[in-house]
Amino acid sequence: MLLGQGYAATVFAWGLARLKKGLAEPWGVPLAKIDFGVPIERLEVVASVDVDASKVGRTLYEVAERYNLKPEPELAEVAVSPGLRLASTPSFIRTAALDDRLPLEDAIARFEELLDDAKPDVVFDVTTTARSEPLRDWEEAERKALRGELPHPQVYALLTLRRSGVAHVNMQPAHVACSPALVEQAQLSGSLVLGDDGATGATPLTVDLAEHLAERNRRVLSIAQFNIGGNTDFLSLTEPDRNAAKEETKSSFLEEVLGYEPPHFIKPTGYLEPLGDKKFVAMHVQWISFGGFIDELVVSARINDSPALAGYMVDLARLAYASLRAGFRGTLPEVNLFYMKRPGPPGVKQKAKILAYQDLLQFVRKLGRG
Amino acid sequence: MLLGQGYAATVFAWGLARLKKGLAEPWGVPLAKIDFGVPIERLEVVASVDVDASKVGRTLYEVAERYNLKPEPELAEVAVSPGLRLASTPSFIRTAALDDRLPLEDAIARFEELLDDAKPDVVFDVTTTARSEPLRDWEEAERKALRGELPHPQVYALLTLRRSGVAHVNMQPAHVACSPALVEQAQLSGSLVLGDDGATGATPLTVDLAEHLAERNRRVLSIAQFNIGGNTDFLSLTEPDRNAAKEETKSSFLEEVLGYEPPHFIKPTGYLEPLGDKKFVAMHVQWISFGGFIDELVVSARINDSPALAGYMVDLARLAYASLRAGFRGTLPEVNLFYMKRPGPPGVKQKAKILAYQDLLQFVRKLGRG
Amino acid sequence: MLLGQGYAATVFAWGLARLKKGLAEPWGVPLAKIDFGVPIERLEVVASVDVDASKVGRTLYEVAERYNLKPEPELAEVAVSPGLRLASTPSFIRTAALDDRLPLEDAIARFEELLDDAKPDVVFDVTTTARSEPLRDWEEAERKALRGELPHPQVYALLTLRRSGVAHVNMQPAHVACSPALVEQAQLSGSLVLGDDGATGATPLTVDLAEHLAERNRRVLSIAQFNIGGNTDFLSLTEPDRNAAKEETKSSFLEEVLGYEPPHFIKPTGYLEPLGDKKFVAMHVQWISFGGFIDELVVSARINDSPALAGYMVDLARLAYASLRAGFRGTLPEVNLFYMKRPGPPGVKQKAKILAYQDLLQFVRKLGRG
Amino acid sequence: MLLGQGYAATVFAWGLARLKKGLAEPWGVPLAKIDFGVPIERLEVVASVDVDASKVGRTLYEVAERYNLKPEPELAEVAVSPGLRLASTPSFIRTAALDDRLPLEDAIARFEELLDDAKPDVVFDVTTTARSEPLRDWEEAERKALRGELPHPQVYALLTLRRSGVAHVNMQPAHVACSPALVEQAQLSGSLVLGDDGATGATPLTVDLAEHLAERNRRVLSIAQFNIGGNTDFLSLTEPDRNAAKEETKSSFLEEVLGYEPPHFIKPTGYLEPLGDKKFVAMHVQWISFGGFIDELVVSARINDSPALAGYMVDLARLAYASLRAGFRGTLPEVNLFYMKRPGPPGVKQKAKILAYQDLLQFVRKLGRG
Repeated sequence: MLLGQGYAATVFAWGLARLKKGLAEPWGVPLAKIDFGVPIERLEVVASVDVDASKVGRTLYEVAERYNLKPEPELAEVAVSPGLRLASTPSFIRTAALDDRLPLEDAIARFEELLDDAKPDVVFDVTTTARSEPLRDWEEAERKALRGELPHPQVYALLTLRRSGVAHVNMQPAHVACSPALVEQAQLSGSLVLGDDGATGATPLTVDLAEHLAERNRRVLSIAQFNIGGNTDFLSLTEPDRNAAKEETKSSFLEEVLGYEPPHFIKPTGYLEPLGDKKFVAMHVQWISFGGFIDELVVSARINDSPALAGYMVDLARLAYASLRAGFRGTLPEVNLFYMKRPGPPGVKQKAKILAYQDLLQFVRKLGRG
Repeated sequence: MLLGQGYAATVFAWGLARLKKGLAEPWGVPLAKIDFGVPIERLEVVASVDVDASKVGRTLYEVAERYNLKPEPELAEVAVSPGLRLASTPSFIRTAALDDRLPLEDAIARFEELLDDAKPDVVFDVTTTARSEPLRDWEEAERKALRGELPHPQVYALLTLRRSGVAHVNMQPAHVACSPALVEQAQLSGSLVLGDDGATGATPLTVDLAEHLAERNRRVLSIAQFNIGGNTDFLSLTEPDRNAAKEETKSSFLEEVLGYEPPHFIKPTGYLEPLGDKKFVAMHVQWISFGGFIDELVVSARINDSPALAGYMVDLARLAYASLRAGFRGTLPEVNLFYMKRPGPPGVKQKAKILAYQDLLQFVRKLGRG
Repeated sequence: MLLGQGYAATVFAWGLARLKKGLAEPWGVPLAKIDFGVPIERLEVVASVDVDASKVGRTLYEVAERYNLKPEPELAEVAVSPGLRLASTPSFIRTAALDDRLPLEDAIARFEELLDDAKPDVVFDVTTTARSEPLRDWEEAERKALRGELPHPQVYALLTLRRSGVAHVNMQPAHVACSPALVEQAQLSGSLVLGDDGATGATPLTVDLAEHLAERNRRVLSIAQFNIGGNTDFLSLTEPDRNAAKEETKSSFLEEVLGYEPPHFIKPTGYLEPLGDKKFVAMHVQWISFGGFIDELVVSARINDSPALAGYMVDLARLAYASLRAGFRGTLPEVNLFYMKRPGPPGVKQKAKILAYQDLLQFVRKLGRG
Repeated sequence: MLLGQGYAATVFAWGLARLKKGLAEPWGVPLAKIDFGVPIERLEVVASVDVDASKVGRTLYEVAERYNLKPEPELAEVAVSPGLRLASTPSFIRTAALDDRLPLEDAIARFEELLDDAKPDVVFDVTTTARSEPLRDWEEAERKALRGELPHPQVYALLTLRRSGVAHVNMQPAHVACSPALVEQAQLSGSLVLGDDGATGATPLTVDLAEHLAERNRRVLSIAQFNIGGNTDFLSLTEPDRNAAKEETKSSFLEEVLGYEPPHFIKPTGYLEPLGDKKFVAMHVQWISFGGFIDELVVSARINDSPALAGYMVDLARLAYASLRAGFRGTLPEVNLFYMKRPGPPGVKQKAKILAYQDLLQFVRKLGRG
C-alpha cells in the first residue's frame, strides 16, 4: 500500500509491473540477486492514497501517464483513494482529502476502513516531507493525532501500527522509526516500523566518503553540500520548516562516522523546475593530509531522485514481509542502517553504508533460514 | 631505508621528524590512533639511496630544503648514497649511479655493502615508475638482474630479499609483491615483501565508489578518470611504457568489485609543471538506476600526491616491523589490500578499501597480541 | 578613504603598499598596463573608517597583521576612525561607532569633520551588505538619513556627495549609483558616484557565459549557482534581508543578456568558516542545442573574494580621479558596466563584461587625451 | 553538398528538414534571428559523399535511422555516393571508396563528375580528422594529390576550388583555409574557402574564458583540458597523428588572447564508447589574483558534439552563399574567427569569440546591404 502517489510511488508501481513481466532489469534494487524467500514477482500494489485533488479517483495508469511513463495495463487496477491532509500538507497542493469534508475523527475512521479493506502487508509512506518531533508516549500521541496536532506521517504510522502483522515503512524525514512510542507500539502489536528517510542521492555517498577519509585519518576541515531539484519534494522544501527537517537527517552521521563534527553546510538548497526529478548535487570537502597539506574534493552529480527511492522500495517490501514472517517485531536496525538517512530506533549508531551493507547481508542470511 | 629520495620520501622523513617532536598531528596516517606495539616515535630513517646527481651526497636536510620544506636538524644525519640506475631510470634524470661508473656486478656488490652497513628493518621503494613483468623463477631472476635485464625496482627487491628478517615495501607499480618468485623468496629467507603501488589519490576512492554502486545494484555504464600533475612521477609517465604500467594498476579492481568490467578510461594523463605535487583529478561515472534512468557523477579533486604516500609509509614501516617480529613471512595480503593499488600476492582478490580496512583491523589485533 | 576596514580594504591597502615598492606584480588590476595619467604609485590611503570595536583606533598595520598579512611599515600611518553603525550594521559585530555614544545628528557632524580633515578624492564603501531601496528624492533622503531610516551605505554616500569634486565608489549591493537622487546630486555638486556591487567572482563569469550561449542561440533551460564562504560578508548574508539584497544584484543581467529570463537560482547560499575568504562556487547550466539535444555545464571554483575586489579598487581609484579631473560628473556607466554587478545609473542596460571592457577601453582613451 | 555522412552531417540534414517544416526551433544556429537575405528555408542538401561501405548507396533517410533519428521523408531523396579514401581514412573503417577499385587518377575524375552533376553552391567537409601540412604551392599540391600524397580533406578542397563560384567549408582540423595555396586559388577561381575546424565544445568557451581572465589581468598559471567521447571522431583520435592534429587547433589561441602562452595540456584524450556523441569535458584553470592569491576554476560539461557543429553548418551554408553572391572571394576571416578553432587565412590573429561575434555582425550587415 502506497501513501503518497507522487513520482517515487509511481515509478515504483510502473517499474515493478515491468520487472514482473521481464521487461526490465532490476538495476537499482540492492538485493535483486539475493534470494531470501520473497521474489520480486510476489510483490503487488494493493492500494494507493493521496490528497492531491488531481490524483484522487484516478488509476495508477492515469497517474503514470501524467508523469510521462508508459504504463503497463495492470496499473489500471488500482485507483488513488483520498488520504489525510492534516496541517502538514504543503499549501501549494489543491487537496481532495478525507479531512477536507469530514471532521477529523470521521476522516480517520474512513482511513481505517481503507486499511481494513486493503489488508496490506507493507505500507509505504512516500508523502511530502513534514516537520515533526519524536513521539515518546503512545497515548499522548493518539490524543494529539485526534486533535490534529501531529503531522500526517506520524498519524499514518500510528494508524497502521494499531494493527498486527503489518510493516510501516517511512521513506520521508518525519520521526517515525525514530519515535520511541511508535517502535514500542510496533513491538506490542506484533508489527514492524522501518525508517526514517530513504538514503538515496548524495547523503549515503557522503557517509561512505566520510568513512573513506576517517580510515586514512584525514582531518575533515569542512563539508558543503548543495541539492537542487525540480520535483514536488524540492518545491515543498522551500518552506523553511520542511527544509530544517530534511537538513537534520542529512548530516546526522558526521559525528558518528568521523568521531567529531566538522563545520558543514549540508542542505536541500532550492527548487528549480527545469531540473525535474533529476536533481543537481554539488559538494565540496577539504581535509588535512600528512604533513599538514590540504586536499580538496568536489563532487557534482545529476541523480534521478525518485527511481533511486523506488528501487529501495522493492527491497524494503520484500525485507519487511520476510521479516514479519520470520517473527521480527518492532524495528530492524540492520535494515534501517543501510536504507535510511536517520535510521531508527533512536540511539542506533550510524555507520558507513558499505559496512551497514555487510550487516544487512548477515541479517538477510537469517531470513533465508527462516 | 629509503630507495628514491624524491618528494614522497622527503615528506616522509621531514614529517616523521616533526611527528616525533610533537610538532604536528599524525593526519594522513591511517592507524595513528591504534596501538600495536610499534609507536611512531620508534621509526628512524637509517639510509637513503638515489641516482639523481643533484641529490647523491647531499643530506636529507639539504634535499628537504630544495623541496621548500623547513627541515628539522636531525635530517642532516642521513646522506643520500648512490643507487642503481639500470635501464629503467628515466632519461630526463642526470644520474650519479653506482652503475654509471662501475660494471653492473661491482655496482650491485657495492649496493649490498650499503645494506650490510645500514641493516634496515624495512626498505621502501619509492623510486620512479618502471615497467616490468612478474618474476616467476628466482634463479632466472637473479641471472637477469646480473645481465641488467630487470628494471631497478625488481633488482632492489631481489637484493633485499636475499636477506633474512627484513621487509621490502614496494610503493610503485612494478611487479614486486605481485611476482611469485619474490614472495616465495621472502618466505624462504624469513623476510617480507609488501606492495605493489601505494593506493593514494583517486584510485582507492574509485574502488569504494564502485563498491557503493555495486551494493545498490546500479549498472555502471562507463568510467573516465584523468590524472594530471607536475611532479617527477607525472613527468616520467609521459613515457608510454611507464604510463601503461601505471594504467594497469589503476583499473585492476573493477571486475572484482563490480562483478563485470565496464568500459573505462582510467589513466595518468599528463604532465603540467605548475600543478606541482598537488595533482588534478577528474572523473566521470554514469550508471543505470531503477527503471532504466541514467545518473551521472563527476568528481574533481586536488590531491597532494606525495604526502598521502608518506602518511601510508609511517603505517607500513610500523606494520612491517611488527609483523616480522610476530613471525609473519612472505607477504601480508591484509596489509596490501588496504594500502596498495595492485595488492600482492598474485591471485589475491581485490575488494573495497572500506572492507579491506576492516580486515586490516582484524590483522592488527593479532599483531597486538603477539 | 576607505569605509569598512574589512579584509577587502585591508588587502587593498597592503597590496597597494607592496605594488608601490615594486614588491609585487599588479595581477588582478584590470587596467594595470594602460596609462591614462594616474599611475598606481600616485594612490594613497588617507583615512579609514569602521564600526567594529576591535578595529577602531588600530592602525592599518595592526589590522593587516590580524588578517595574517605581512604589512609594510607605511600602514602604521593610518588609523581606523569610528563610523556610523545606524540600524543596518549586522548584530554580530560589537561596535564602537559614533552613533553608539552620540545622538545621530552629532555623530553625522563628526563624520563630516572627518571628511573635512581627510579631504579624500575618492571614497570607497566596502562595508557589509545592507538592504536598501533606491532613493528618488534628495531632500527626503536627507530627512530620512537624519531620522536614522536609511542604511549606512546610503548615508555615507549622501554625506560624501554633499561635497564637490569627490568620487564615492560603492562596492556593495545597496542602491547608491542606482539611486536617481544620488546620481543627480553628484551631478549638481560636481562629484561622481560609482557602483553598485563590485562584479568579482562568479557573477561576471556567468554574464560572459550567458553572452557566449546567447551568441550561439542556445536556449538556456536553467541556471543554478551556489556561493559559500567563510568571511564576514558571508556571515552577514545569513540574515535573510541581506541575502535578498545580494541575490538581486547577482541575477539582474539575465534578461538583458539573453533576451529572456530563464528559471534560475543564483544566491549566496551559506556561511562555512573554514572556507575563509576563498569562497566555493558551484554552478550548473543546461541548454538546448541544435536539434533539441540538451547540453550541460558545471563550473566549480575557489575564488579569493577580497583580493579580487581589491584589484578592482586600484583601477577604480585611478579612474575616478582621472574622470573628475577630466570634468566628468554624475556617474560613469562605462566604468560601472565593467566593474559592477548592478551598474548605475538606473536604467542602464547590462551587457557581457567582455563587451563592456571594450567600451571601457574607449572611455579610458578619452581620459588619456584629457 | 556533404563530404562525410557521419553523425554531424546527418544531424544537419535531419534537423534542417525539420526546421524547414517548422517542426523545431533553430536553437544552436547562431544567426537564426538575423536576416541577411538567405533564409534557412532556402538551404537544400544536393549530394552526399562517404567512404564507409555501410553508408555508400544508402539514402540519408536510411543513414538517419541508423543513428536513431526519426527522419523526414525528404531525406530519402539523397543517396550517399562513394568518395576518396586516400591514405588518410582511419583503418577501422571498412571502405567502399572510388579509389578502392579505380586507379587514383580515375577515381578523382569520377569525383569531379559528381561535382559536375551536383553543382553545389557550398561543399562541407565533415570527414574524419586527418593530419596535414599547410599547402604553399598550388601546382605542387596538384601533383601531390595525384600521387596520393595528400590527405583526403586537402584533396577534396583542391578539387572543389578548381571551380568557380563555389564555397568549400572545412569543418575539420586539416590545413585548408590555413593553406596559403588554397586561399589564393579560391581568390583566382572566384570561389571561397572557409575553415578550419568548427569551434564547438570546450575550445571556444576556453577562448572566452581566457579573454575574461586577460581583461582582469589575472595571470594564468596553467590550463588542463580533457575531452573524451564515444563517437567516430574520438575513435579516430586514438591514432596519435590525428590526435596531434586536433591538439594543435585546440590551443592555438592562447598566446594571442592572453599575450603569453601559459603551461597547458589541452587535448582530446580518449575514446569511451558509452559516452556516445555527448562528450565529457573537464578543465582546470588556475591563476594569480591581486596580492598573489591563487584562484582555481574547474569546468565539467557534457556536450553533444555533432549537433553543435550541425547548427553552425546552417549558418555557414547561408553565409557562404550570401558572401559569394555579394562578390567575396578567397576566404572570410570575420566568419572563420567566430566559427572556427584555427581560423584562416594563415596569419590571422585569434581573438575572443565574443569579440569575433561583434565583427561577424558587422560583416553580416554588409551582406544585408548587398
